[in-house]
Amino acid sequence: MPSQNPIFIPGPTNIPEAVRRALDVPMEDQRAPDFPDFTLPLFADLKRVFKTEDGEALIFPSSGTGGWEAALTNLLSPGDKVLTSRFGQFSNLWAEMATKLGLDVVVVDVPWGEGVPVDQFAQILADDKAHAIKAVLVCHNETATGVTSDVAGVRAALDATGHPAMLFVDGVSSIASIDFRMDEWRVDCAVSGSQKGFMLPPGLALIAVSQRALAEAKKATMPRCYFDFAAMLAPNRSGFFPYTPATGLMRGLRAAIDLLLAEGLDNVFARHYRMAEGVRRAVDAWGLELVAAAPRWQSDTVSAIRVPDGADANAVIKGAFHNYGLSLGTGLAQLSGKVFRIGHLGSVTELMLVSAIAGAEMAMRDAGIDVALGSGVAAAQSWYIGDRDRLAQAAE
Amino acid sequence: MPSQNPIFIPGPTNIPEAVRRALDVPMEDQRAPDFPDFTLPLFADLKRVFKTEDGEALIFPSSGTGGWEAALTNLLSPGDKVLTSRFGQFSNLWAEMATKLGLDVVVVDVPWGEGVPVDQFAQILADDKAHAIKAVLVCHNETATGVTSDVAGVRAALDATGHPAMLFVDGVSSIASIDFRMDEWRVDCAVSGSQKGFMLPPGLALIAVSQRALAEAKKATMPRCYFDFAAMLAPNRSGFFPYTPATGLMRGLRAAIDLLLAEGLDNVFARHYRMAEGVRRAVDAWGLELVAAAPRWQSDTVSAIRVPDGADANAVIKGAFHNYGLSLGTGLAQLSGKVFRIGHLGSVTELMLVSAIAGAEMAMRDAGIDVALGSGVAAAQSWYIGDRDRLAQAAE
Amino acid sequence: MPSQNPIFIPGPTNIPEAVRRALDVPMEDQRAPDFPDFTLPLFADLKRVFKTEDGEALIFPSSGTGGWEAALTNLLSPGDKVLTSRFGQFSNLWAEMATKLGLDVVVVDVPWGEGVPVDQFAQILADDKAHAIKAVLVCHNETATGVTSDVAGVRAALDATGHPAMLFVDGVSSIASIDFRMDEWRVDCAVSGSQKGFMLPPGLALIAVSQRALAEAKKATMPRCYFDFAAMLAPNRSGFFPYTPATGLMRGLRAAIDLLLAEGLDNVFARHYRMAEGVRRAVDAWGLELVAAAPRWQSDTVSAIRVPDGADANAVIKGAFHNYGLSLGTGLAQLSGKVFRIGHLGSVTELMLVSAIAGAEMAMRDAGIDVALGSGVAAAQSWYIGDRDRLAQAAE
Amino acid sequence: MPSQNPIFIPGPTNIPEAVRRALDVPMEDQRAPDFPDFTLPLFADLKRVFKTEDGEALIFPSSGTGGWEAALTNLLSPGDKVLTSRFGQFSNLWAEMATKLGLDVVVVDVPWGEGVPVDQFAQILADDKAHAIKAVLVCHNETATGVTSDVAGVRAALDATGHPAMLFVDGVSSIASIDFRMDEWRVDCAVSGSQKGFMLPPGLALIAVSQRALAEAKKATMPRCYFDFAAMLAPNRSGFFPYTPATGLMRGLRAAIDLLLAEGLDNVFARHYRMAEGVRRAVDAWGLELVAAAPRWQSDTVSAIRVPDGADANAVIKGAFHNYGLSLGTGLAQLSGKVFRIGHLGSVTELMLVSAIAGAEMAMRDAGIDVALGSGVAAAQSWYIGDRDRLAQAAE
Repeated sequence: MPSQNPIFIPGPTNIPEAVRRALDVPMEDQRAPDFPDFTLPLFADLKRVFKTEDGEALIFPSSGTGGWEAALTNLLSPGDKVLTSRFGQFSNLWAEMATKLGLDVVVVDVPWGEGVPVDQFAQILADDKAHAIKAVLVCHNETATGVTSDVAGVRAALDATGHPAMLFVDGVSSIASIDFRMDEWRVDCAVSGSQKGFMLPPGLALIAVSQRALAEAKKATMPRCYFDFAAMLAPNRSGFFPYTPATGLMRGLRAAIDLLLAEGLDNVFARHYRMAEGVRRAVDAWGLELVAAAPRWQSDTVSAIRVPDGADANAVIKGAFHNYGLSLGTGLAQLSGKVFRIGHLGSVTELMLVSAIAGAEMAMRDAGIDVALGSGVAAAQSWYIGDRDRLAQAAE
Repeated sequence: MPSQNPIFIPGPTNIPEAVRRALDVPMEDQRAPDFPDFTLPLFADLKRVFKTEDGEALIFPSSGTGGWEAALTNLLSPGDKVLTSRFGQFSNLWAEMATKLGLDVVVVDVPWGEGVPVDQFAQILADDKAHAIKAVLVCHNETATGVTSDVAGVRAALDATGHPAMLFVDGVSSIASIDFRMDEWRVDCAVSGSQKGFMLPPGLALIAVSQRALAEAKKATMPRCYFDFAAMLAPNRSGFFPYTPATGLMRGLRAAIDLLLAEGLDNVFARHYRMAEGVRRAVDAWGLELVAAAPRWQSDTVSAIRVPDGADANAVIKGAFHNYGLSLGTGLAQLSGKVFRIGHLGSVTELMLVSAIAGAEMAMRDAGIDVALGSGVAAAQSWYIGDRDRLAQAAE
Repeated sequence: MPSQNPIFIPGPTNIPEAVRRALDVPMEDQRAPDFPDFTLPLFADLKRVFKTEDGEALIFPSSGTGGWEAALTNLLSPGDKVLTSRFGQFSNLWAEMATKLGLDVVVVDVPWGEGVPVDQFAQILADDKAHAIKAVLVCHNETATGVTSDVAGVRAALDATGHPAMLFVDGVSSIASIDFRMDEWRVDCAVSGSQKGFMLPPGLALIAVSQRALAEAKKATMPRCYFDFAAMLAPNRSGFFPYTPATGLMRGLRAAIDLLLAEGLDNVFARHYRMAEGVRRAVDAWGLELVAAAPRWQSDTVSAIRVPDGADANAVIKGAFHNYGLSLGTGLAQLSGKVFRIGHLGSVTELMLVSAIAGAEMAMRDAGIDVALGSGVAAAQSWYIGDRDRLAQAAE
Repeated sequence: MPSQNPIFIPGPTNIPEAVRRALDVPMEDQRAPDFPDFTLPLFADLKRVFKTEDGEALIFPSSGTGGWEAALTNLLSPGDKVLTSRFGQFSNLWAEMATKLGLDVVVVDVPWGEGVPVDQFAQILADDKAHAIKAVLVCHNETATGVTSDVAGVRAALDATGHPAMLFVDGVSSIASIDFRMDEWRVDCAVSGSQKGFMLPPGLALIAVSQRALAEAKKATMPRCYFDFAAMLAPNRSGFFPYTPATGLMRGLRAAIDLLLAEGLDNVFARHYRMAEGVRRAVDAWGLELVAAAPRWQSDTVSAIRVPDGADANAVIKGAFHNYGLSLGTGLAQLSGKVFRIGHLGSVTELMLVSAIAGAEMAMRDAGIDVALGSGVAAAQSWYIGDRDRLAQAAE
């Protein structure tokens, strides 16, 4: 009998019912006269989720990886210098892409478990008197390690030195789940995807770009066609597209944004913290450690959990899948076999998370890891009860 | 944000994906020439779930309550004597219906928590030398108390005395979940509904009737139209219906029966035992008691759990709903405020049940009941792990 | 490759997308604390569709046939005299049910193609000085013949003689499609079903009953349980049900009523006239005749079309189905082989109807009936264009 | 009330029910251990639709436009010479993209209404003794004009001169609808999309590439990341993806391919011819002309229909949409205002097409075009009847 369990990978995430139903539509004509009645408000509200009034929002049929490429190819020219850091599989892949595309990539390597090295960036930017660095790349939330970085800190570093480099943010697993402020932090290009905080199936890259960056784009000579911002934005202004958009996913996006805005973004962020903290309490009760090297790095969308030395995290993950129908995230690259991950972003509830915690306990026991059954669950339960009480008191 | 949690009432039950998709169909013509290609195999396979080759299966747009009425009005005449017992809200309601319909109802009252009093029935049947009793009514699984009765025992009691009374079974919350054998136990009329073990939305009464009972029906004078077996069976033979059938639900029924038969009924029953036992271990770990008065009465589809004296089960249920999005079953009639129920029938998994157990723990704590967080979860986890090991060993 | 065509039987009808999506819900708890937030407004709005403020609305898991039984068994006693007429398969079946239930049924036979004989009814009521007649049964829209009767005329006949008989209306294929006024016509019990004008899958009987009838119900002695109004209405008052309601279909009903009320009932009726008239023009262009014997009988929900003498309507229907994937309605009882029917109720468009007309033309040609291809289509097109022009002029 | 009508743009196309249901899935883990059980057979069967055993099939989250880019950037280097022709909006856009990407594009302009100029290509290839031309680009089916080109003829031209240029085919609106033979024609890269003959929502580029082309790709220096074949194919071999694939659409693709292969590709092509010919007969009956300049150019997936001089095709299209809920294709670029298009690809039936024809007739009349109502419908009906007879005779 097929499993009825939700998934706990750090994206794609579980689809809320309202979104699922919005996705289930007959085919429509993307050139219909009333199509802009749908698309123009959608762009406007998507901008609200990015917290930008100044910028433009774009929707590409693509994964988040395509969004990375769009940022780099639209706003830079071959040989341009960019500054980035590497502390996990996804920050690494974006840096590799930049190199492959012919950019001059300055990479600061950081231990996996930490985030963007703001102080080092500040120094590098200060040293770059000639302003050779054209863009700084920040992975806001490293999905591989469960680490959230300080984007505002990077902005402050740029401002402190008066450095004109553009600020690009990979917000694939942060935007719509963790506090992100495009305009306030003067982010020039932010990239997200449909399948994380937007609670949709994969298939859309969601991008916001500042007016300043769009001006830069006119000078940028990197070849681009499919992901060309100007070619996309021109028909977008009247609500249409240069090629067939993924209309089904966009109908779902409408429903997802409706949910996010109805709840209020700040409430969405608080809920993610509340959910995440339950998982962290469980990890602590197990006597295990997060990959995140300090509390300030801990991600509210995903927790990467180290198994004890000598244990095999992949055995935990496979056992969880085959024995209990539980999908956990794997350890990627250098973390393979050493960690399993629990995604707690998007549409999850306390009860869903305790089931993931309980399943992880069972799978760890099956894999020979000495963890007390129910211990992590109890810690999470305790947090969820207490947090609710606290919220109730605060509301008085 | 709307809850994504499954429900844990003892029916309606969670709909498997394959069934949900089968339900989502455009409208069809119930008089189409190829409609019998769909309906005739459906009747045949429905009979397999009732474990009858001899009998006929019927599908009415109705709830299970309508199925009760169908059994009584098709097979009996006003003033006929019937024997039944009362040990919960549903056994009580069927007895009340029989009285309201003008039958002469002999009711044996039994403490709630026990099941059909086979010995007393045996005595009453033995004493009924004149064979005045026309039918014996058995509630196979009392959903209000979580008690399963011994249908085979009632058959044995009838056989022991050579009593010709018909045997009617309310199998609403047992059939397709708990072992039920229409032909072997020579049940004359068995009633079920779509929304329990059949894992469908409510709206269908599913009935099987023996050839012997159909012969009796010709003599039965109780007025009936909508639920008339003969009027239904005549067009059914060629695959059609005397009035518009609930085609959408029937498409879902096809998918549900496909799942049941693919898994194998015995495996379905074993899975229900396995799931239920985890909940029972949790109850034991909490130091609480089931309504079921002895292990032999314990139901594999629903557990009715007594809260400690002085505690309010309704506060637990309301808190679970409002604070954690957890739907538990309420205590009905004399059990109101004294019990909450966890349904563990249909499409549920270990992880779903540990989430229900964990949620119940939290809601009990919120309601002032002294239960250790994680304690029930740990007991259930331990059972699920151990049972899996046992199954693996058995397979070697 | 499976057909993508809509169906054109006179119910079940094509499901609008908004309703289809509303139906596709996970299972819910019909005893949840917030369930009345859903059900109480649903009852209130269902009353609006029946155009009653005085009466009560009821929802049974059942077909419309069950609704007939509910009306008769709740409001009458065995041996009560009822007046009805017979002019098609459905008016006939309701009369037969009344007889089977032990009522004293006065039936006025009318040629199939005409409707309720208001003048004869007036005479019979005038002659019934003793007021032996307890109820008058009216089939508002005879689905078998495509005939709509004059319910207001029957009310006038009752009033003219001051006759106190109750007025029961079978509105299965009229309510929500054709003008029906429960309070204004002082209808005592009106019966409809989910699968016609309500645009839902079959499975719900929708009933409205007047306060006067509910008072009568207390005296009525016909046995009833499943369909008992009092047992249903008592828990309904707080938003709950005496047994498991068909929650999935009720979620669809919510969406369907939302569509109806948003369009406005009078607009819904005007649309049905507009759609129907196109089909009638086509029939006229073919040189064929409706079963409806005069324009005043013509139904706006279904047209029953006579094939020429010697032709076989069933061959047309079968050919339409097998060759073109077109579901037409069959001729029932004495009309079998003589007519085919086109349902034009619920969610249909001009283009859908011209496809049905075109398909009927092809199937008639295939069956040897001499009809000019495109002739009916052209007549319908001409009407739809002209009617739109007329509407535009009227709006100026 | 929202329209229930299908759409008749030349893609996206109407989604069959089986595909629609397959799309409606909860979220899944694209790194699950059993994911390759789904993906590996999907790749294998996708190759069957392209009719290639030798090549590899790739699935990108993208539109068909991205597929064009993938072909050019993976297999060519900056400055490479490519030969193409331009006879409609889409052949034009692909040529423009090639130029934008820095290729040396030889474009043969052809009147819109004709297809690829095989003879001119043959001459150019023969003249290219130095084999400077690296690739020949062929738009198999120009969606803007309803013109199908002779891919086999281009292959013959290459072979006749022994020219080694690669052969790239835009099969977005042909593959899965019109005969296409990857291996037999030795096509090196064929591009399609999900939203045409594959009957899915837009969002996937479907590509097949020959082994020879993959060898060329190793030498090609055009920058590429997102669409890189090698980076995609490496994890594909074990059933996984380098970034998150559009799992939902891929589940739909599985169902769509199942439908195509069950019907048989040759039957699918014959059905498209049969459907298309009905539309062409209607156009002829109207006294109008196709853009396709000769029968050999006529496309079986879309017909572009010229309105009479002085008439405004856009008024027809707008009127059809607003007055009848009919979505027709617009005239693109130089054809704007001069043509409307009827898409007849994917899951359409005779009845659906007669409704489109009838709606076009009404909209043309509303726009002042003198066309006899029903005339096109009659011609299409006559064809569909006759063709069915012919098929029946052939089957004897």
